[in-house]
Amino acid sequence: MVEPGDPAALEAFDGLSALEVWELLQTGTPRVERWAARLASTNPERDLERAQAVGGRFVIPGDDEWPEQIEVLAHAGQQARRGGVPFGIWVRGEANLRQALAKSVAVVGSRACSSYGEHAAAELAAGLADNEVTVVSGGAYGIDAAAHRGALAAAGLTIAVLACGVDVSYPKRNTALFDRIAAEGLIVSELPPGCSPTKLRFLARNRLIAAGTLGTLVVEAAVRSGALNSAGWAEQCGRAVLAVPGPITSRMSEGAHLLVRERNALLVTSIADILEAISPLGTALTSYPHAPDEPTDGFDLEVRRTLDAVPVLRPVPTLRIAVTAGLDAETVKECLETLADADLVEQLPAGWRLSPTHRRALGGT
Amino acid sequence: MVEPGDPAALEAFDGLSALEVWELLQTGTPRVERWAARLASTNPERDLERAQAVGGRFVIPGDDEWPEQIEVLAHAGQQARRGGVPFGIWVRGEANLRQALAKSVAVVGSRACSSYGEHAAAELAAGLADNEVTVVSGGAYGIDAAAHRGALAAAGLTIAVLACGVDVSYPKRNTALFDRIAAEGLIVSELPPGCSPTKLRFLARNRLIAAGTLGTLVVEAAVRSGALNSAGWAEQCGRAVLAVPGPITSRMSEGAHLLVRERNALLVTSIADILEAISPLGTALTSYPHAPDEPTDGFDLEVRRTLDAVPVLRPVPTLRIAVTAGLDAETVKECLETLADADLVEQLPAGWRLSPTHRRALGGT
Repeated sequence: MVEPGDPAALEAFDGLSALEVWELLQTGTPRVERWAARLASTNPERDLERAQAVGGRFVIPGDDEWPEQIEVLAHAGQQARRGGVPFGIWVRGEANLRQALAKSVAVVGSRACSSYGEHAAAELAAGLADNEVTVVSGGAYGIDAAAHRGALAAAGLTIAVLACGVDVSYPKRNTALFDRIAAEGLIVSELPPGCSPTKLRFLARNRLIAAGTLGTLVVEAAVRSGALNSAGWAEQCGRAVLAVPGPITSRMSEGAHLLVRERNALLVTSIADILEAISPLGTALTSYPHAPDEPTDGFDLEVRRTLDAVPVLRPVPTLRIAVTAGLDAETVKECLETLADADLVEQLPAGWRLSPTHRRALGGT
Repeated sequence: MVEPGDPAALEAFDGLSALEVWELLQTGTPRVERWAARLASTNPERDLERAQAVGGRFVIPGDDEWPEQIEVLAHAGQQARRGGVPFGIWVRGEANLRQALAKSVAVVGSRACSSYGEHAAAELAAGLADNEVTVVSGGAYGIDAAAHRGALAAAGLTIAVLACGVDVSYPKRNTALFDRIAAEGLIVSELPPGCSPTKLRFLARNRLIAAGTLGTLVVEAAVRSGALNSAGWAEQCGRAVLAVPGPITSRMSEGAHLLVRERNALLVTSIADILEAISPLGTALTSYPHAPDEPTDGFDLEVRRTLDAVPVLRPVPTLRIAVTAGLDAETVKECLETLADADLVEQLPAGWRLSPTHRRALGGT
């Protein structure tokens, strides 16, 4: 009867449970006059039948499956943004919605994405699945589809949150994908079966994705896009806002870069980064990125100081190296021999310099 | 006589001017005993002659050309990092060093860079040059060379700060580049003519690049790299630390991403971002990234609300759209006609839906 997040409905039914709203509607109170036209064509029994026909159900607050975290929407967002807690959620698929969302991340982005974005979305989604994190997205082309497919490929749970009925395939070409998601994960929607998407419904849908998950990861998004709307909701709901960087030459990465620069999103480059961001404080800490070992890592300080003082190209005598390194000549002589054994320096008639091998590793001529 | 940033020399000559140090050395005081071996082979007249032979000079504190901002090094860094203000700087080229550095940015990165990094460095350097910002780098292969070349291509000023004498071409294959930089910009070094590079000298050189410029821009860098050392110095000197993002699949962008994630560097994607970061607070503000115009931007609110309520695919009657949009039927009828004229919606026997053109723009089937 009412559109998702309809401000007038939120006001009229404020504080009422789904059942109480239903009972109110039976009485024909003037409070629902505004929606009279649509109330007349509302047929909950038919909706339930249509849902059951595709293995669906209607979940309301108080049900075992109800994901309580979305009630944050009672306080998040302004009316203009179509906020509010849904009266209920249509669910298609076998998993328990609450359990599936308990450890979940939204992976969102543009429909018109680059192959880099598609690759990143699929890889990160597969990595999340490997770590038993449910991948939530919107079932659209591009980043959304890549994220769902990545999770499915890793035999993980994925949830498509739609802006139409759970029995409607929109976009059509994703029909096979929706069938797989329904079979192995969940398809959910605030809208009853048979409903078509509208732009308002897309925007309202984004709030559910943001509120239901621990964080929203924007993979690729133009500056004006639904993915940034989702990120805005995540911010409003106090969820982590994560962004994947990309080349500065790509318009498709502009939205993600904007989130990092202007809206304090966390730049993430790996599964470890994402897990750290969505885990309770102090757990799942990422290690400082691992740097490749250097050939001198095993040597003691004096050997390393000696090496640092050896010229790249023009050989100099031991004494000169000793002065540069601030060590005595005897020590430096021993250190140089250690370094020569490791093929890091070489001795010429005029003295010592870096070996050709080490010089190349350093990037010189 | 002493290596750049030698902690013992900084202590021994603390508070003395370049001239006072020079006079002290004539006296043969025991304070310089530590450097006796090198003092013996020090020959300032010969150094000056060699510099003059390549159009060079020695600039010391108090000279008109002396860039006072590098005196921040008296307080930045720990001894282990080879800090300290240089006693003087060798300069080759016609420009005035102080003036050239007054509005300058360091563009640094890895020798082994990707073609993306090379492209980004050259483009950003050219853009800086177009905005009369001097591009400072280290004259190495990869990002450094691309930055110098980008600035030269835009007929801008560029400065190569070397870890060897200003008359030494290291790396050798950059000889032609150094000649162009000397002819059109500046080559500078803390080391006298003829000196070869060592790793210590590279590290000490990095502090000059960071201290002399308004900010250090890291284009591409591995996690363990000289560019991150430069960024560390920029941080210590209170200069802007800027990082260019790149694909998460590229190892070469790991250092830049690390700076943004862990060390609070500013992610920059354009010349405007860089100019904002290095300009006095409140000037050169970047505009919020420009989003492409939407076809509905010119319409009033009621028309936009009507459009948002029109189904993507399945046509519905006017009244239904009016209820969804929360507008009266008469208004919605007018709005739909406006939208049809703009080819955003289409009317079918069963009602209205988005036009095929607008549907495609939205990314659906």
